[in-house]
Amino acid sequence: MDLKITLLGGDGIGPEVLAQSVKCLQAVEETFNHHFTYTEGLIGAVAMDKYGSPLPEETINLCKESDAILFGTIGTLKYDDNPSARVRPEQGLLQLRRELELFTNIRPVRIFPTLVAKSPLKKHVIFGTDFVIYRELTGGIYFGEKQWSEDGTYASDLCEYSEKEISRIAHLAFKAAKSRKKKLTLVDKANVLETSRLWRKVVTRIAESYPEVKLDFLFVDNAAMQMMLNPNQFDVILTENMFGDILSDQGSAICGSKGLLPSASIGAEHAMFEPFHGSYPQATGKDIANPVASILSTAMMLSHFGMHEESRAVVIAVHKSMRKNVVTKDLNANSRYGTSEVGAFIADNI
Amino acid sequence: MDLKITLLGGDGIGPEVLAQSVKCLQAVEETFNHHFTYTEGLIGAVAMDKYGSPLPEETINLCKESDAILFGTIGTLKYDDNPSARVRPEQGLLQLRRELELFTNIRPVRIFPTLVAKSPLKKHVIFGTDFVIYRELTGGIYFGEKQWSEDGTYASDLCEYSEKEISRIAHLAFKAAKSRKKKLTLVDKANVLETSRLWRKVVTRIAESYPEVKLDFLFVDNAAMQMMLNPNQFDVILTENMFGDILSDQGSAICGSKGLLPSASIGAEHAMFEPFHGSYPQATGKDIANPVASILSTAMMLSHFGMHEESRAVVIAVHKSMRKNVVTKDLNANSRYGTSEVGAFIADNI
Ligand SMILES: CC(C)[C@H](C(=O)O)[C@@H](O)C(=O)O
Ligand SMILES: CC(C)[C@H](C(=O)O)[C@@H](O)C(=O)O
Repeated sequence: MDLKITLLGGDGIGPEVLAQSVKCLQAVEETFNHHFTYTEGLIGAVAMDKYGSPLPEETINLCKESDAILFGTIGTLKYDDNPSARVRPEQGLLQLRRELELFTNIRPVRIFPTLVAKSPLKKHVIFGTDFVIYRELTGGIYFGEKQWSEDGTYASDLCEYSEKEISRIAHLAFKAAKSRKKKLTLVDKANVLETSRLWRKVVTRIAESYPEVKLDFLFVDNAAMQMMLNPNQFDVILTENMFGDILSDQGSAICGSKGLLPSASIGAEHAMFEPFHGSYPQATGKDIANPVASILSTAMMLSHFGMHEESRAVVIAVHKSMRKNVVTKDLNANSRYGTSEVGAFIADNI
Repeated sequence: MDLKITLLGGDGIGPEVLAQSVKCLQAVEETFNHHFTYTEGLIGAVAMDKYGSPLPEETINLCKESDAILFGTIGTLKYDDNPSARVRPEQGLLQLRRELELFTNIRPVRIFPTLVAKSPLKKHVIFGTDFVIYRELTGGIYFGEKQWSEDGTYASDLCEYSEKEISRIAHLAFKAAKSRKKKLTLVDKANVLETSRLWRKVVTRIAESYPEVKLDFLFVDNAAMQMMLNPNQFDVILTENMFGDILSDQGSAICGSKGLLPSASIGAEHAMFEPFHGSYPQATGKDIANPVASILSTAMMLSHFGMHEESRAVVIAVHKSMRKNVVTKDLNANSRYGTSEVGAFIADNI
């Protein structure tokens, strides 16, 4: 298979971990006889420093012309001090999601058997946890109209949803549930929000087309509680943008380390794959960042393009690195392996 | 001291647990020579069944004329099946918060030493956890304008805040931090929301008047993660209505049982005290509900009116019930004590 891949390393540890993903993809090309081309683009603080914009036109075009985007991480300490600045690195990411219409963010949460001890939750609580969050990514309060009063004493953000925005992600989530444990939980706040009521209405109707899937509902406050008390009750969680942001970060904490979780952002025409974790500026350039989340994101990319065997090969190599304790220091304080060695080990085992 | 107290038992186990609180308050009256009067009012599903409204005019007036309100719980299975119904029991609670301008919801999260085993989190993770959430309760997306398109394919909820709404709760939160561990964490999403930027601006300015208190900021997604990874880093968390709803329920899960946590809702002229937990319809009338959350809410009420010694006496009696294992079945499956016996034991020990 031929694939055009855009690499957006971004800020912080992004470029370092992404380089390990490329190693793995090159191993996949060789082993399975594919042909991937890689082009690099700028986004985030690096783009701001060079072009004054966190998402230069050039980068958008590059992404639009490619089959898939591998994304690193975004944000630097320099801009973190001032969350109120109009132009922030994150704006680049939000704008890219919107430009490419990446309306579905998929975040699997699964416990690595070797890492149960890392979880803040007790073993019997997390046992068997394996769920995936489908988060709406281009609507809701993130992108609704924003206002300030002239005197600066009042501000507002509009949360809005249309049936179309809900139904396209709902179909993807139901399909995922069908191929998994056949349970879909819609998380909303339908006892307070009208947008949540619209979600319930649309999702309840769509459920009729997926009779194999059991649909249930949880208010978001209860969901946050259940995710702590009993995370293994979940299979597919479907939710709107803001709730998905909160719950997926909470979900990632279940695993103890954010350095392990991949994510995919899918649209009708484009797809982007990125680690769950942030840019970890303190670790930049030190060869200590965990490349596994980024590498597992490439596995999600391979699956997305139907290369399931290839995807499995990557996942198996990652598991091997854990079993053999070829891991970065975040997982084993005594480890002598750096980012690049772990990446090479995984690539060599594909 | 003379106090006029309105009792709103509400639905489900509300009236049963509230009855135990009254026992305790009567013990306080006797022991400390106070005089409290109690009047009952209707709210929630019981009020809907009787008056067709979850918050009858009568109840509002009763509350306005009293010094404090003790609230039970709200919601029944009957109405839970239909979250989209226009008139729901919860509407009564939301309207009451608004009518009485109860703009600050205070939810302490503290681990009972005897109950560490109940927490889903590992012992070393929760060790020392003792924080309090100050949640804004009468603004934000809960009360902003709501819209539907005529064809029912679009809905919106407006999230809005004014400087005044933020500053009044911020002052209360800073004062609390000053008398505690001197740390205040503002939780927001200032990298995306304009309302969050207003919160940061206002809170940062108010911080100047409280130089003893260290102010820091967390994005809400990170806060949900930190609450799982390292809850004992928090002292006072200040946040807007929707984020507070989610985080306080997540926080309650830290304790393993929701049956233990009290809350207070404070306004300039009125104050209401209620357990954290829901109406637990399945347990109604069975004398198995845990009355501790409701009883500890009365302790918050006593403190609120300056009766600190009285409040401590209630808390000490609760601790004694735990130490002596005079608890309901949710805390000890072999317990033979019911709601009413636990309430009586605590009252007798005041
Ligand atoms: C950086 C930020 C704008 C972003 C979001 O809130 O969507 C991040 O938290 C995420 O979840 O990808
Ligand atoms: C019942 C519901 C409307 C309410 C809220 O969301 O505020 C509840 O969850 C709470 O936290 O008191």
